[in-house]
Amino acid sequence: MDVVVTGMRSTGELHIGHLVGVIDNLKKLQETYKSYFFIADLHVLTTNYEHTEDFKKNRVSVMLDWLASGVDPNKATLFIQSKVPAHTYLHLLLSMIVPVSWLERNPTVKEMIRDLDLKENASYGLLGYPVLMASDIILYKAKYVPVGKDQLPHLEMTREMVRRFNYLYGELFVEPQALLTEFPYVPGIDGKKMSKSLENDIKISDTEEDTTKKIMKAVTDPQKIKLHDKGHPEVCNVFTYHKIFNKEEVNDIERECRSGELGCVACKRNLANKLNEYLRPIREKREQLKNEIDKVEDIFEEGSKAASLVANATLEEALTKMNLK
Amino acid sequence: MDVVVTGMRSTGELHIGHLVGVIDNLKKLQETYKSYFFIADLHVLTTNYEHTEDFKKNRVSVMLDWLASGVDPNKATLFIQSKVPAHTYLHLLLSMIVPVSWLERNPTVKEMIRDLDLKENASYGLLGYPVLMASDIILYKAKYVPVGKDQLPHLEMTREMVRRFNYLYGELFVEPQALLTEFPYVPGIDGKKMSKSLENDIKISDTEEDTTKKIMKAVTDPQKIKLHDKGHPEVCNVFTYHKIFNKEEVNDIERECRSGELGCVACKRNLANKLNEYLRPIREKREQLKNEIDKVEDIFEEGSKAASLVANATLEEALTKMNLK
Ligand code: SF4
Ligand code: SF4
Repeated sequence: MDVVVTGMRSTGELHIGHLVGVIDNLKKLQETYKSYFFIADLHVLTTNYEHTEDFKKNRVSVMLDWLASGVDPNKATLFIQSKVPAHTYLHLLLSMIVPVSWLERNPTVKEMIRDLDLKENASYGLLGYPVLMASDIILYKAKYVPVGKDQLPHLEMTREMVRRFNYLYGELFVEPQALLTEFPYVPGIDGKKMSKSLENDIKISDTEEDTTKKIMKAVTDPQKIKLHDKGHPEVCNVFTYHKIFNKEEVNDIERECRSGELGCVACKRNLANKLNEYLRPIREKREQLKNEIDKVEDIFEEGSKAASLVANATLEEALTKMNLK
Repeated sequence: MDVVVTGMRSTGELHIGHLVGVIDNLKKLQETYKSYFFIADLHVLTTNYEHTEDFKKNRVSVMLDWLASGVDPNKATLFIQSKVPAHTYLHLLLSMIVPVSWLERNPTVKEMIRDLDLKENASYGLLGYPVLMASDIILYKAKYVPVGKDQLPHLEMTREMVRRFNYLYGELFVEPQALLTEFPYVPGIDGKKMSKSLENDIKISDTEEDTTKKIMKAVTDPQKIKLHDKGHPEVCNVFTYHKIFNKEEVNDIERECRSGELGCVACKRNLANKLNEYLRPIREKREQLKNEIDKVEDIFEEGSKAASLVANATLEEALTKMNLK
């Protein structure tokens, strides 16, 4: 069975954007591939090393979100990056064969440094995160890595590292191929990018009341003021949500909005109900798992041990090829 | 007891320069401190990643040289860097908090890039070797590190990393202090820097015949051509060696050289005999150890396990401080 590897940074509770994007994709992958899914807590350090106080909470939160939404430890190996030390060892070995000029040309790092206003403070680890990413992937000899278009250059860097290692020390690693994945874009309720800090996100862990409140505050078509004004769904965030979470009714809603039959309050309440319905089983499962937190942690502990077996075996091979064993 | 840590790159067989320099120092340190001495094989990759074919041989060679010359596994923990994975893990953690600008300012890296003509090919690992060096030291909470003057800036970088970690995550690591050490300078038999590639070095592993042959070829005072010409010991390499390895006779030799009493051939033969006498017990021990190579490897295997216990405990503390445990 072909191997697929993918990681997710643990920066907080997941929202419905993750649910219909990354997580739905994990659920598809686990049916088809020998899957390794990991919580990339070490990668979080590249940008958040100054604020680690929520690291443990965030990690548990992602575990709960994954398991509650159907990511299945019987189908995929679920693990925590920091619990598989081989990632850090191969990172060091690769660091020795990767010209620093490859990394300095990385446009994403340049962007991050600008966006986070890091300048002089950009860390050595941030510059090298493609090296850690390569290590994450090739330790499992992954054939596929699900990536969005914007991440293709990073995957290409992983492939270059594989070629360089194999050329220097003999065939060992597998060049991973992109499993080009289009993640549906779910904007925040205000139309901006969904983000915890903007409080415009609907989280898996929110209550039904929170969800309803957030939806009721959503920005709709600014030209539709009175109930029977004719609306323009194409400029309305609520409509964007209906398109994703209420496919059965979306055509009716579009028609009734345009004709002025439907009012925004009713339309939002409908969406809130639909979203809550959709999220209800996931949230119930999440609550239940929260009461069995030891079991949840054990799942990832076991997964990390299983991943370590595979990763350590590959690392031994690499060390042998390099005459370090 | 205060802890001291020091490593030595395994790039080949050691010569008499190492013997009266680094190794004599190790023998002093092991009497006074809780000592961790390691073979820095991972550091060798920073410059030699393209040529690893002799790595295993070189590692064994350093083991033999150390043990034969009196570095004592009952007094110091002797280990191999690559067998203590915690070094690579802490390297990754530190990489996240070290601004890349600190490393780019490192004059030694700049020099190396120039000397090795690396330019675009300088590796990410070469840029980051002060990070690995810091990891090597602070995992053992070393109070002292023996360094020559030229290495003081690196040690200062380790100290900066310690301060930064402790500031960000709470007190844990110890700022190591320099144990400023003057290593006697032993030039090659041609007066140039001793180096394997120049074949001007006298190795512990050389035979007595090799040693004598090399000394007999040594360059002496070019103005002393005939036996009874008056010589100038201050410009003679052979005399430099007498000063180090034949302290009892050095004054007589100086006088007799200046007066023209002593001829260069006799003077060299005398030196060759003295050197061979000095090296004989070490060489005999080395031969004997070569026949018990499994025992030698076991010593370093055991040492690496002992070092791992200490290093892993510190690593756990670091991970806990960073909320990764
Ligand atoms: S009726 Fe619904 S789709 Fe139309 S503008 Fe109001 S909220 Fe948006
Ligand atoms: S006699 Fe000895 S010290 Fe003097 S020049 Fe010759 S080799 Fe050198």
